[in-house]
Amino acid sequence: MTQTRSVYNFSAGPAMLPREVMLQAQQEFCDWHGTGLSVLDFSHRGKDFTAIAERAEQDLRDLLKIPSDYSVLFCPGGASLQFSAIPMNFLRSKALYINTGVWGDKATQEAQKFGDIVAVDALTEDQGNTAILDEAQWSQYEDDFDYVHFTPNETIGGVEYSALPTIGKGKWVADMSSCILSQPINVSDFALIYAGAQKNIGPAGLSIVIVRNDWLDRPRPATVPSLLDYSVMAKNQSMYNTPPTYAWYLAGLVFQWIKAQGGVEEMAERANIRSRALYQFIDSNDFYRNPIAPLSRSRMNIPFILNDESLNDVFLQQAEQHGLMYLKGHRSVGGMRASLYNAMPQAGVEALIAFMDKFAEQNR
Amino acid sequence: MTQTRSVYNFSAGPAMLPREVMLQAQQEFCDWHGTGLSVLDFSHRGKDFTAIAERAEQDLRDLLKIPSDYSVLFCPGGASLQFSAIPMNFLRSKALYINTGVWGDKATQEAQKFGDIVAVDALTEDQGNTAILDEAQWSQYEDDFDYVHFTPNETIGGVEYSALPTIGKGKWVADMSSCILSQPINVSDFALIYAGAQKNIGPAGLSIVIVRNDWLDRPRPATVPSLLDYSVMAKNQSMYNTPPTYAWYLAGLVFQWIKAQGGVEEMAERANIRSRALYQFIDSNDFYRNPIAPLSRSRMNIPFILNDESLNDVFLQQAEQHGLMYLKGHRSVGGMRASLYNAMPQAGVEALIAFMDKFAEQNR
Repeated sequence: MTQTRSVYNFSAGPAMLPREVMLQAQQEFCDWHGTGLSVLDFSHRGKDFTAIAERAEQDLRDLLKIPSDYSVLFCPGGASLQFSAIPMNFLRSKALYINTGVWGDKATQEAQKFGDIVAVDALTEDQGNTAILDEAQWSQYEDDFDYVHFTPNETIGGVEYSALPTIGKGKWVADMSSCILSQPINVSDFALIYAGAQKNIGPAGLSIVIVRNDWLDRPRPATVPSLLDYSVMAKNQSMYNTPPTYAWYLAGLVFQWIKAQGGVEEMAERANIRSRALYQFIDSNDFYRNPIAPLSRSRMNIPFILNDESLNDVFLQQAEQHGLMYLKGHRSVGGMRASLYNAMPQAGVEALIAFMDKFAEQNR
Repeated sequence: MTQTRSVYNFSAGPAMLPREVMLQAQQEFCDWHGTGLSVLDFSHRGKDFTAIAERAEQDLRDLLKIPSDYSVLFCPGGASLQFSAIPMNFLRSKALYINTGVWGDKATQEAQKFGDIVAVDALTEDQGNTAILDEAQWSQYEDDFDYVHFTPNETIGGVEYSALPTIGKGKWVADMSSCILSQPINVSDFALIYAGAQKNIGPAGLSIVIVRNDWLDRPRPATVPSLLDYSVMAKNQSMYNTPPTYAWYLAGLVFQWIKAQGGVEEMAERANIRSRALYQFIDSNDFYRNPIAPLSRSRMNIPFILNDESLNDVFLQQAEQHGLMYLKGHRSVGGMRASLYNAMPQAGVEALIAFMDKFAEQNR
């Protein structure tokens, strides 16, 4: 089963995991560290899994410099389940949702089930390109909100804050599904950070929640499901019930890999190099176009459009033949999208650019 | 990494998967069917994962003969999340919970957050042994319940109905986490069947919900989280958000394996043979004891007690040295527990009995 060519997966998520992680996981799939057992069938309360779980948490704490007064939770499901859990736990009066794309909108819709939400559309059109509004234009919203929710990177639109908002700092709640571990962050600015695992962390079906402990004690309604109650989850070290053990283990391997590569500073450096290369190519080639204003461009998800959209199908078909997979844009946006998460090697971006260049020449 | 001895995992869950499934999954871990990609990083909306997902559902439908007017959902998280979802979706007036152990009690506690629950403790002591009460003793509870919830097999106590209750047939809601796919069932008797995957289906972090379609249209409060709303899940083919794709794939491999072995009839036959052998050994040996009345004994989870409990630690230690893992009983029960799910080969039970026999002789 040796691969005869390199294959790169540009999917927005589930996304590729680092090659080294995949090979290690495969090698120990049926027999972890000579136990004769797979991590898949470890009891979550046994000593082997406990060690795996604790190390994963500690490595994540090290990577993001998470202060000791924050809990780290490994929750079942993806970020969409947290869209519900967050207002169920913390919405008492009203909350501000600053939205820059589809996922912020979805989080808002879910939160509106549970109380009063002030939603700001923080996107604008800037000379035909999409951009994040300058904060001055919506700072009048500042008020006594329970929390301020935003999405630092929007996977579908390919929009990312170059500088985070300042409103409500300290009671920020951020969906970092598509940018966590791609750069250093100051965790203390946030009340809660959450992320579905399937982009920069590990497999789908797990989400990470980092929450300041003083928020765990806030009173909440008796109708919060136990699995969505952050206080219950924290008290039980994320093992109120059987957690997604294998996903947790793989996340731990990814954390180890990031550490070995040089940490989130190195991930940030690589993300900048990868994304700059692709944006520069797109901007310099009149065959392709990226619809986002430069200051609001995502380092993780790069949508691009062929100026002749009738070539979309043949582009995708030929890309696949070159081992460049899942480049089709989200159905709500169309065109193409290249997701360049931590696990994407620079060689993958170079292969994509080389293919795009050749395709443009041949189809001009 | 070839194993030099056989290792058997008696954990109650996460539990061992069939050896053949593990080997296949390992072999195609980094390259599924020559795609050069892992199932782990398939987009859940791509054609490869769609085929995997659809086949898994069809195989489960075939195995359990699920009628076409039932939906099959692949949900994130374990059964405990469904403890909340079920009353959130279906509890309007009141529901009956017939409880035979810890998990039924937990389901009840969660349901009580959302409305009026009549809970029946259907366990009794029968000459020092635990037994399920005869239904005649609680049939007076029959009334106009929204649904009747029970747990056909209780993992912790090792208690299983030899014949299901008859009360409320048609509006049964059953937690089959530890017995699904271990015998034929008549799905039409149930409004909803649910099961955490990590015992007889696949890895932790996934649960299966089988629900009659006419129940999906019942009105429910606007405050049900989307991911816990069975109607939303069904309309989106369990892909309202990114599902736990790898767990879904492994579940599919297990379904294929069960089919190849001869289906749930064959699983039932093997479960009977496995469990009978162990109960017969325990009953015939005055060194060990099983605290459940014969008619209420589980085929899946067999707790047993060493009459001299001071030997517990040395028993567990020596069992591990013989490759017999995770035999420690649940902390609420003590003693030992051998879980014998579908993936446990007969040779595992025989190895356990041989060890227990030898241990008894040496420590009498």
